Amino acid sequence: MSKYKALKEQAWECNMEIPKLGLAIYTFGNVSAVDRSKGVFAIKPSGVPYDRLKPREMVVVDLEGKVVEGSLRPSSDTNTHAVLYRSFSDIGGIVHTHSTYAVAWAQAIRPIPIFGTTHADHLVEAVPCTEVMDDEMIKGDYEEQTGQQILDAFKKRSYKEVEMVLVACHGPFTWGATPGKAVYNSAVLEELAKMAYLTLTINPKAPELKKTLIDKHYQRKHGKNSYYGQK
Amino acid sequence: MSKYKALKEQAWECNMEIPKLGLAIYTFGNVSAVDRSKGVFAIKPSGVPYDRLKPREMVVVDLEGKVVEGSLRPSSDTNTHAVLYRSFSDIGGIVHTHSTYAVAWAQAIRPIPIFGTTHADHLVEAVPCTEVMDDEMIKGDYEEQTGQQILDAFKKRSYKEVEMVLVACHGPFTWGATPGKAVYNSAVLEELAKMAYLTLTINPKAPELKKTLIDKHYQRKHGKNSYYGQK
Amino acid sequence: MSKYKALKEQAWECNMEIPKLGLAIYTFGNVSAVDRSKGVFAIKPSGVPYDRLKPREMVVVDLEGKVVEGSLRPSSDTNTHAVLYRSFSDIGGIVHTHSTYAVAWAQAIRPIPIFGTTHADHLVEAVPCTEVMDDEMIKGDYEEQTGQQILDAFKKRSYKEVEMVLVACHGPFTWGATPGKAVYNSAVLEELAKMAYLTLTINPKAPELKKTLIDKHYQRKHGKNSYYGQK
Amino acid sequence: MSKYKALKEQAWECNMEIPKLGLAIYTFGNVSAVDRSKGVFAIKPSGVPYDRLKPREMVVVDLEGKVVEGSLRPSSDTNTHAVLYRSFSDIGGIVHTHSTYAVAWAQAIRPIPIFGTTHADHLVEAVPCTEVMDDEMIKGDYEEQTGQQILDAFKKRSYKEVEMVLVACHGPFTWGATPGKAVYNSAVLEELAKMAYLTLTINPKAPELKKTLIDKHYQRKHGKNSYYGQK
Repeated sequence: MSKYKALKEQAWECNMEIPKLGLAIYTFGNVSAVDRSKGVFAIKPSGVPYDRLKPREMVVVDLEGKVVEGSLRPSSDTNTHAVLYRSFSDIGGIVHTHSTYAVAWAQAIRPIPIFGTTHADHLVEAVPCTEVMDDEMIKGDYEEQTGQQILDAFKKRSYKEVEMVLVACHGPFTWGATPGKAVYNSAVLEELAKMAYLTLTINPKAPELKKTLIDKHYQRKHGKNSYYGQK
Repeated sequence: MSKYKALKEQAWECNMEIPKLGLAIYTFGNVSAVDRSKGVFAIKPSGVPYDRLKPREMVVVDLEGKVVEGSLRPSSDTNTHAVLYRSFSDIGGIVHTHSTYAVAWAQAIRPIPIFGTTHADHLVEAVPCTEVMDDEMIKGDYEEQTGQQILDAFKKRSYKEVEMVLVACHGPFTWGATPGKAVYNSAVLEELAKMAYLTLTINPKAPELKKTLIDKHYQRKHGKNSYYGQK
Repeated sequence: MSKYKALKEQAWECNMEIPKLGLAIYTFGNVSAVDRSKGVFAIKPSGVPYDRLKPREMVVVDLEGKVVEGSLRPSSDTNTHAVLYRSFSDIGGIVHTHSTYAVAWAQAIRPIPIFGTTHADHLVEAVPCTEVMDDEMIKGDYEEQTGQQILDAFKKRSYKEVEMVLVACHGPFTWGATPGKAVYNSAVLEELAKMAYLTLTINPKAPELKKTLIDKHYQRKHGKNSYYGQK
Repeated sequence: MSKYKALKEQAWECNMEIPKLGLAIYTFGNVSAVDRSKGVFAIKPSGVPYDRLKPREMVVVDLEGKVVEGSLRPSSDTNTHAVLYRSFSDIGGIVHTHSTYAVAWAQAIRPIPIFGTTHADHLVEAVPCTEVMDDEMIKGDYEEQTGQQILDAFKKRSYKEVEMVLVACHGPFTWGATPGKAVYNSAVLEELAKMAYLTLTINPKAPELKKTLIDKHYQRKHGKNSYYGQK
């Protein structure tokens, strides 16, 4: 029996959440779950539709993206996941989707402004959007470079406070302390993307949320004196 | 056995309507039900996802928001509910959601204009939007102040004729004679918010509904000679 | 046993289609079915939610809108139905909904332009929108006058070729040779309303469909040499 | 037993995907499946609702559109399918829908710009939109001419690289090596149409995707060194 069985089941379960939450159709998107002690992560095999995906088909790779266990090819985005696991040392899972509204903002090459408390409950600034990749990077190791683009966007912010990003012209990546939290962040991001879209259409001059409200909402949920949720 | 069992079950049932009606995802939103004779209300525990919520987990608090029964923390919005129950003496339930279109109007800091008879069937004016809270209030007792912002918006209107409000940059609160009616109002508000959004996109100069039509529709449903519904 | 049993069941079944098709929530909307030989129509009782509606609760009224059988009040829109049955002598059913996109066009007080063949498959011109009712009419017999507004809009067009209308600031009414066809028309109207909304947003100068294409599509489905559907 | 039984079942199954995927309501849309060795294709009968459609009712026609087997009339769009099968010699199935966002672009008479990698994963340019048909063609053999309009749009592009098209003022046609792939393309097209719609609303000046990114995504999925999917 595989020593990665539990990890593969966890990754599989989180992958199966993606179509249920309406975050991707067909084979779009992928979720991975990492086991830091074993130095590996399990990820969706490339191009396999969710409705046929089996737990044992999850591919186990090391943090360089090399296959450790599994007969199928891992997701073509595996190297992007690997970059993030190497640099964001405390995350437990990563999700990439092509959810409709988040992709629209990525294609518009615009960060998602922070307009309200739903957003501030989860992060204290706009959802960042990477730079458009330059041609050298695209022709090089593209998926690795996609990860680098994300790292660049996090030079001036913390991956623990902002657990989501838009890759310009492409779509969203999210992460979290657990793979389940990363999936949650993908669903929340799609909702924030839709709310911001509607807000801007109603009022193209809608102001960003004021700093005091951002802090209040973020701190009541995530600060050291937080009182949202259970102890 | 808890003497609040029936109240907690009523509150639980109404909370469970929220995700079914598509008015909130995950732990967003909360419903409370009041028992005026006992001076308490039952409310959703904070941060518990709807699909795991149990009737016995509902938290019973007094009208100052102090816990009377229950081992979980009540919703972080409990004090806002408490303010409303103290001031709106005839309401039986309160609902707070993050429904998408209503939040968009709140984030745009715009009242929802009364464009048609669907709206006039329920209230005779735009759905009001509170002022943006000033920094002192935010840093003070935030949830209490959120309630105060709502009360301010109702100085010049009746909470019995207008059973819904947008808290600027945040989202909707609704109420009603019963918790079930409050839930109904949340679903209606979301529909009005969507209709108004589409109306403005089709015709940015769409006029507000004329007074005679507003009165006709509101009176045929709610006036003393109403003929909508059953006797 | 009621001699209207079959009629009431037919009307009930068609009413139950409305929430299934997503054309109305709660108690919004109503469907009626006429029996020309008996001079009556069966219609939804006022304010009863679809999920509790029973076939025997359908109210039977004559073509003046007077109750013939049933213990509940008929829909508050009954007189509008009655006007249409008296004037549109070949229709078998009428539907009124508050479907979201059709209401938005009605609230924008704009006919729905004929932009494509989906529209031309069903009617050869824009979906008409009535005038806004003047104050005298509103204060008079409102529902009767709503019917009159619709008749006015059909002075220059045939109710057999155009089986749908928007009542300004209110919402859609549709009809057809059978109640089932009237329901079908309500669903088609909502789809046309959504398509036209999106079309205008993409291209505010989108042209109306050219006459030859309108005729071709309408005639291949409804003309004497039609070849759409089965003989 | 019919010698076309397997072909008819395949066509039926693919037709049944259309309403499940939300790509058409009622009788809108049609799918066909070709058997090149027998020189025939099976197609949906005209005007039959999906929920009553039976495998044995599929109509088998030759590549000129003449009925070979079946007692029902074939889809009114049969001749358009026939033109495409004759000219696009390697396709195995064709789908026509009235999916909402794709129709909106067709009605706006606008190709769908290539804004992101979701699009580039499937084709390397905008989804083309045909010219509006001129009056002579409309009055002639309309469905045959619709096919000709599509062929005209493919004079300067390959039907193997671009498996989808918008017929101006009408709606989308897609095809593929198999009928299943053609259905997949219809669902993908609708998603691309929605993403592009939202992108343009957020940023009316959103740039088209740069050539290097288009090539990278298309080649990693479809090029000779592709590494997306399984071998």
